[in-house]
Amino acid sequence: MAIRFTIVCKDRKSLARAGVLTTPHGVIETPAFISVATQASVKGVSPAELLTMGAQVVLGNTYHLHLRPGEDIIARGGGLAKFMGWPGPTVTDSGGFQAFSLGAGREQGVGKIASVFPEEDNHRDPDGRGDVSRLAANSGESLTRELKSLVSVDEEGVSFISHLDGTPQRLTPESSMAIQKALGADLVLAFDECTSPLSPYEYVKASMERTHRWALRCLEAFDGKQQALFGIAQGGEYRDLREESARFIGGLAFEGLAIGGSLGKSKADMHKVLDWTVLLLPDEKPRHLLGIGEPEDLLECIARGIDLFDCASPTRIGRNGTVLSPLGRINVLNARFREDAAPIQEACGCYCCSHFSRAYLNHLFKEKDELGPVLCSIHNLYFTVSLTRRAREAIMSGEYKRFKDSFLASYSKRAPK
Amino acid sequence: MAIRFTIVCKDRKSLARAGVLTTPHGVIETPAFISVATQASVKGVSPAELLTMGAQVVLGNTYHLHLRPGEDIIARGGGLAKFMGWPGPTVTDSGGFQAFSLGAGREQGVGKIASVFPEEDNHRDPDGRGDVSRLAANSGESLTRELKSLVSVDEEGVSFISHLDGTPQRLTPESSMAIQKALGADLVLAFDECTSPLSPYEYVKASMERTHRWALRCLEAFDGKQQALFGIAQGGEYRDLREESARFIGGLAFEGLAIGGSLGKSKADMHKVLDWTVLLLPDEKPRHLLGIGEPEDLLECIARGIDLFDCASPTRIGRNGTVLSPLGRINVLNARFREDAAPIQEACGCYCCSHFSRAYLNHLFKEKDELGPVLCSIHNLYFTVSLTRRAREAIMSGEYKRFKDSFLASYSKRAPK
Repeated sequence: MAIRFTIVCKDRKSLARAGVLTTPHGVIETPAFISVATQASVKGVSPAELLTMGAQVVLGNTYHLHLRPGEDIIARGGGLAKFMGWPGPTVTDSGGFQAFSLGAGREQGVGKIASVFPEEDNHRDPDGRGDVSRLAANSGESLTRELKSLVSVDEEGVSFISHLDGTPQRLTPESSMAIQKALGADLVLAFDECTSPLSPYEYVKASMERTHRWALRCLEAFDGKQQALFGIAQGGEYRDLREESARFIGGLAFEGLAIGGSLGKSKADMHKVLDWTVLLLPDEKPRHLLGIGEPEDLLECIARGIDLFDCASPTRIGRNGTVLSPLGRINVLNARFREDAAPIQEACGCYCCSHFSRAYLNHLFKEKDELGPVLCSIHNLYFTVSLTRRAREAIMSGEYKRFKDSFLASYSKRAPK
Repeated sequence: MAIRFTIVCKDRKSLARAGVLTTPHGVIETPAFISVATQASVKGVSPAELLTMGAQVVLGNTYHLHLRPGEDIIARGGGLAKFMGWPGPTVTDSGGFQAFSLGAGREQGVGKIASVFPEEDNHRDPDGRGDVSRLAANSGESLTRELKSLVSVDEEGVSFISHLDGTPQRLTPESSMAIQKALGADLVLAFDECTSPLSPYEYVKASMERTHRWALRCLEAFDGKQQALFGIAQGGEYRDLREESARFIGGLAFEGLAIGGSLGKSKADMHKVLDWTVLLLPDEKPRHLLGIGEPEDLLECIARGIDLFDCASPTRIGRNGTVLSPLGRINVLNARFREDAAPIQEACGCYCCSHFSRAYLNHLFKEKDELGPVLCSIHNLYFTVSLTRRAREAIMSGEYKRFKDSFLASYSKRAPK
């Protein structure tokens, strides 16, 4: 076993638990938020800044890193962590996300084009579900044609057209394992296919069964003694499929479990999916909810037994000047902050809030100085990482329900009046 | 007096000296390099990173900050240093640079358009002289027309058209002093007009005499008890004018002296200008050579008695992936660095070199991740700041000539083989 997971405290009123996950590159105290470094960088935020804010672990994407710079260069650079100057644990996603974004799109004429071929981070992104709906409404022939040309899923694996140079690419369970071994992350994910909230039952079922067969092939191909392989449970928003997948994946010899794919069309749907799934997963293994990381989601899903989260949202919205606060989101570009000498959030301990005003951030964005997006990303990551740390402390002190209810009562996505 | 300048050691073989400049916001050990923060930010490099690299002082530009965000917002934010989160001394340039870039351009149909209306930093930039020559060769009617519409210099001051919104703007010695008082930097500069290397003797002479009259008006208008006003000696590349200006400006009640304007057409010309000027300036006051900061220039000009330098070059070239090393410049985008696991410079103590390889920097630039430009800027600033610190140590230990000769023998602008 490459990792050791110890549950140090369980909440009495929910499934929340506090754990210690020991990896070859260091310890992750759970619940934990994983910062997204799709292309081996957290979009302008340096590892030193991540350490300062208490970030414990980062996640790169197999698909992106395979295309550029290539796993050989990263392997020769000492593996993902050393290559990107991050002195702690790392995770790699398997490339299966592309099967969701492009595969489901190909079948149905919908997809998350904007985030599949990103300027911004595009890890399995819950916000993207909005894109799917929007695109579904507008889906026309040209969209279908474009998607058809990009990917095809078969029993063996997934064929892509590189979004960088148009070259044909192929990922299989075996090649994903080989690439992830070369990348050298501590936690690696099985190669899966995700489905979209618009996929019909029959497609989701067939895809899930294929993902199960891929899971077995991943376990067979995996030989990373310095890595822990996580399986991914699928099943879309269908209860019987979710339960079947949780039982199947949860019963295999993975060192951890991830929950992937469509989580439905609303936060209530997502909660239901977790309620169906989590109790069927082995209690002693760490659980990673892929691509989720909004503040309210973190607290609700921790209560439903999730240990690990990752999400590009803190950096993606930060780069547009949108920042998180206990009262919800605000955008520093708003004209009312032009002369506002207060920090984003009073008493926040992040580097941004302890040194800079909303007026200064507003100025940086107007000047198009990259320090603005970076400072807002730092605040949002600090906010998110701190929220999971505080959740952990609340679990340890037996106050989790009170902590969650208190936070959610004041938090909304509206700007403060 | 707002500042105190103590010369702690003089070199015996040159005019180099080591000093301690005490300002209201802290001490500057000279010779010192001033990091350029034209718009109250060092282009993506945070104050924390500047502190880590040993940077002592930053410089903002009155013209830019007056236009955006406006001196009132900065004053309400606690002054330039507090507004930008920089815990040390600050300098503001006077806006006179625009009189050089646009004024000389208007007269002659040449100018530094690319750096006057910058995407990049554009402080008084020696590289810009190249632009002047280039533009002179191409100068056509359209260029002349464009410049004519942007600025006019008269006895009272300079009228501009804002490059941001086209509104008419005006700076005078008195308004520059008032703006700089509101900005609240420790060191402020007199409002001057610079001339270009192509300006004829008669224009340079008339401009210098006007700058002298403006210097008197600046002294009259200046009332910053928490600020030190530096005069600026002009005179272009003409010996009699340089000597006249050094005597005149050096004889006034400024707390420090700056050397501005055209320094000729070559580095040899620049050295001659300093040789004419420096000995006519009062020995006991700090001397700032405006807009110069290439490694070889720092060492040659320190030997000619300069204490302070500022230059946008380290961040400007860094943003394009060009980095300084003891063997000259290299560019990390070069294909030969794609798999190079070595840092930019072995044994360099900067954050970039102690954590990241050339291969990683090459990758970041390909991914257009802003961390790449920022890391290269950090290295270049560290290199430049360290060079002045090492020069100071060499002066203190009586080894300055040996240090300078040794550095210059290996340094060139060529990439290493």
